[in-house]
Amino acid sequence: MAFKNWVMFGHSHFFGDIYDTITNSGDRLSKVVVNMPEKITPGRPTLEERIKRLPYRVDILPIDQFQPGQNESYVIGFSRKQIQPVVDDLKARFNLSFHPLIHGQSIVQCGALFSEGVIVDAGVVLGPWCRIQKHVIISRGVIVGHDCGVGGYSFLGAGAVLCGHARIGVDVFVGANATVIPDMSVGDGAFIAAGAVVTRDVPSNTMVAGVPAEVKKQLN
Amino acid sequence: MAFKNWVMFGHSHFFGDIYDTITNSGDRLSKVVVNMPEKITPGRPTLEERIKRLPYRVDILPIDQFQPGQNESYVIGFSRKQIQPVVDDLKARFNLSFHPLIHGQSIVQCGALFSEGVIVDAGVVLGPWCRIQKHVIISRGVIVGHDCGVGGYSFLGAGAVLCGHARIGVDVFVGANATVIPDMSVGDGAFIAAGAVVTRDVPSNTMVAGVPAEVKKQLN
Amino acid sequence: MAFKNWVMFGHSHFFGDIYDTITNSGDRLSKVVVNMPEKITPGRPTLEERIKRLPYRVDILPIDQFQPGQNESYVIGFSRKQIQPVVDDLKARFNLSFHPLIHGQSIVQCGALFSEGVIVDAGVVLGPWCRIQKHVIISRGVIVGHDCGVGGYSFLGAGAVLCGHARIGVDVFVGANATVIPDMSVGDGAFIAAGAVVTRDVPSNTMVAGVPAEVKKQLN
Repeated sequence: MAFKNWVMFGHSHFFGDIYDTITNSGDRLSKVVVNMPEKITPGRPTLEERIKRLPYRVDILPIDQFQPGQNESYVIGFSRKQIQPVVDDLKARFNLSFHPLIHGQSIVQCGALFSEGVIVDAGVVLGPWCRIQKHVIISRGVIVGHDCGVGGYSFLGAGAVLCGHARIGVDVFVGANATVIPDMSVGDGAFIAAGAVVTRDVPSNTMVAGVPAEVKKQLN
Repeated sequence: MAFKNWVMFGHSHFFGDIYDTITNSGDRLSKVVVNMPEKITPGRPTLEERIKRLPYRVDILPIDQFQPGQNESYVIGFSRKQIQPVVDDLKARFNLSFHPLIHGQSIVQCGALFSEGVIVDAGVVLGPWCRIQKHVIISRGVIVGHDCGVGGYSFLGAGAVLCGHARIGVDVFVGANATVIPDMSVGDGAFIAAGAVVTRDVPSNTMVAGVPAEVKKQLN
Repeated sequence: MAFKNWVMFGHSHFFGDIYDTITNSGDRLSKVVVNMPEKITPGRPTLEERIKRLPYRVDILPIDQFQPGQNESYVIGFSRKQIQPVVDDLKARFNLSFHPLIHGQSIVQCGALFSEGVIVDAGVVLGPWCRIQKHVIISRGVIVGHDCGVGGYSFLGAGAVLCGHARIGVDVFVGANATVIPDMSVGDGAFIAAGAVVTRDVPSNTMVAGVPAEVKKQLN
């Protein structure tokens, strides 16, 4: 079968990860479609400079020049609730659908399920019968336990560990190397700081941190 | 050579992991042998429901109907000291032996040694010359350092990190994403909480937690 | 192409890891060159005893008998600043160069760059466009984020997690399972304790520990 051409939407923090995940699967990133001016950080390469380093051609085009093509897959290059209006708009205008994008050097155990638009970076282990809802982004080296659920638009930071039967809500941020012990529930919109160890349920829209994790702040 | 038929004993929390580890190696889980009524958790699938999801047939039978067959391997589906009487009984009645069960997507470095009945889930790294004693269960993404020893019946939770020359006793519980620094000794029956960082030796039968880990409780 | 013969300098804590990394790549450790008497730890095998366990022959020789051979690669078997004078001496005397030594069961994402003498153990993930400077040693299961920089002679302990754009200085020790959140800078000569979570820049030559990490000590 022919390889797929992937189209990425947005100026992405995760550009390198998305490019690597696509290319590692034998597919190709063909276009980056941008809908706003790029936020430039001094001392860091721009998207255009990053693309120039690649070993094959990738086009950048503004969203008003975008038209869906044949044999294309689509990926959103940023995370959490910001994704939702962009997805809704792309579905309404172009009837796009979003395939999961799973790095070939990650491990998917039996019965793991992904909804549309999920991105799984390298070195991840997804346990048996975990359910990853739409547009979740899972960073490098994350471990998801058996029977976990992760709600839509959530972000799991590098090296985070979810034990079996953990239930992560919608639009949750799990910081790098954080731990959620078995059977815990994390409410929608929660923010778990890097390295936190969640040993009790986390209320919605709270920020927790520490070992064990405690509520530090109400969000919104 | 023909694939092996694995027989699992017990209603297991780790059912999915054991099934995946067996299947990933090209072997087959053929039977689950149960010796007590299952503990049902509302909202979670029963063992029978889990088995119905599998792509091939697995039989469930009560232990009094069990007879060992040809070309079979045996695995115990639960952890720590509860295993011992079951193993003793199965050896006495049926003369069973227990092969190590190592996930094909884990990394075994030079000289690593496993005793009977060891289970190693996916994404694990077992360092050079580590010695894993009988019926230890090692969860997803665990890192075991060079020259470590892990005593019989111990459990290493997801993402735990043992540094070089760590010595873990018999029947120890190491919580998810806990860390044991180089050269530390953890006594028999100890419980290391999730995310704890062990920087001193841990006395037997104590529960430790925190960063750095401190004794929180005497056990037994 | 023929396999390479690797020559290791020093009595190494990392001997098993280096041997495994070399052998896993299909290459061979042919010689260990020592320049001082071995520090013996009671109850632990000596280098000679370790070498006797190997499935193929490895010679040990004192440095005054060493002569570079054809098709050889060189690796230094210890870490941090102690390496520098040894490297300088070997370059001056024999004009040696040091290739990076990367375990075949680690993941190298797009654009990752290694300088001479870098050692990467098993189960590591190196993110897109990270830059690893000379003679850095990266232990088992480390995660390095996209666009990170790691300065020369630094050591990353088992399971450590560096998030995107982290900048680690020269001769830094990152303890096992420590976390550095995105965009942080760690100064030259710093020591990050095991399990520490770095959420602010770390000054040069300080020792930090805890969650979040705080300065505990000035070094030097």
